[in-house]
Amino acid sequence: MRIRKKKWAMPYLEDHPEYAILKPDQYRGKWATRFSHSAPIHVEIGSGKGQFIIGMAQKHPELNFIGIDLQDAVLAMAVQKAVAAQLPNVQLVLTDGGDVDDFFTKGEVDKLYLNFSDPWPKKRHTKRRLTSPRFLASYQQVLPDQAELEFKTDNRGLFEYSLVSLNNFGMQFETVNLDLHHSGPAIVQENVETEYEQKFKEKGPIYKLVARFGA
Amino acid sequence: MRIRKKKWAMPYLEDHPEYAILKPDQYRGKWATRFSHSAPIHVEIGSGKGQFIIGMAQKHPELNFIGIDLQDAVLAMAVQKAVAAQLPNVQLVLTDGGDVDDFFTKGEVDKLYLNFSDPWPKKRHTKRRLTSPRFLASYQQVLPDQAELEFKTDNRGLFEYSLVSLNNFGMQFETVNLDLHHSGPAIVQENVETEYEQKFKEKGPIYKLVARFGA
Repeated sequence: MRIRKKKWAMPYLEDHPEYAILKPDQYRGKWATRFSHSAPIHVEIGSGKGQFIIGMAQKHPELNFIGIDLQDAVLAMAVQKAVAAQLPNVQLVLTDGGDVDDFFTKGEVDKLYLNFSDPWPKKRHTKRRLTSPRFLASYQQVLPDQAELEFKTDNRGLFEYSLVSLNNFGMQFETVNLDLHHSGPAIVQENVETEYEQKFKEKGPIYKLVARFGA
Repeated sequence: MRIRKKKWAMPYLEDHPEYAILKPDQYRGKWATRFSHSAPIHVEIGSGKGQFIIGMAQKHPELNFIGIDLQDAVLAMAVQKAVAAQLPNVQLVLTDGGDVDDFFTKGEVDKLYLNFSDPWPKKRHTKRRLTSPRFLASYQQVLPDQAELEFKTDNRGLFEYSLVSLNNFGMQFETVNLDLHHSGPAIVQENVETEYEQKFKEKGPIYKLVARFGA
């Protein structure tokens, strides 16, 4: 998602250090200190305007959440939501999310979410997809053994690629859903939607994969 | 697919021993003797009225094919097609296809196809699905190491189940296609349709998975 530059975004982020983190490497190994309660940390890579990560933080006060996004304009909107809801269990990080091992240590993150990541449809851009082996290796570096990765997309090509990529990486599939919004009521109700998902769920199937890393 | 009993089917099969095999265990380890030319043998489990296996035999004269079906009425229709086309590279077997290791030896089959298998949607019938671990183990018994299984279905629940089941069995995914008939022209052209597929391909996506067994 490409967003117009917003002049207020960076000053707003700088003005909210309680939620916005601009230099994540300084917290490597110390992320627990950013939360009032000790709890497992779940991370969303590509948190956009924050509807998912804020919704998850509200729904699961027993967990701590970190949303990562590359673009200050959308991260600022996520921070606005956190400020409005006064949430103690969410942090928002401005950085490129793929190389998570640069700013988390092994086991510091308990679970990862990828939602509607950039599909990078051209073959020569395969390596940029957040489900390509290079990034999977980076995720594995920061998760404990057997940790879960949850992945949602409406992009058929990216989902086909990701099923093969995660399988070939040796990950164990837990569930595959090929039409999340036409599933049992319990599944639909449990699902926390992203902004994009809310807008596009009627246009075609939303795909979801939950898979575990090996030891 | 449940088919009305056809009184002529069994006598017709008995009358065409050059194509129809009613006692497959007698050929265990000797299937090559059923073909005029020595070639890799590809097997379809649940060949129905035979459009796929006959189409494949016509398209690939360099290979030998065996179609297996449980119902004499549909197998007889497949044999009729083989008789009409006078194909030297296809055999049709009347038996329950899942336990293939009962009538093939290790490495006797080079590749397996499952097309539009019975979805057995109820949870208590999971074990009857042709992509459940028990059957996968049976397929592995008759294939060489690294052999491919190709699987097509229009049943979302069965495909979701099968992605998880084949992954959990340790199979390596080659390709996943979530809408076979809306793919590149080369993919559509290479595809040999079953009767059922021809009829239902406009009603919703046809899913396809190609996966390899491990060593």
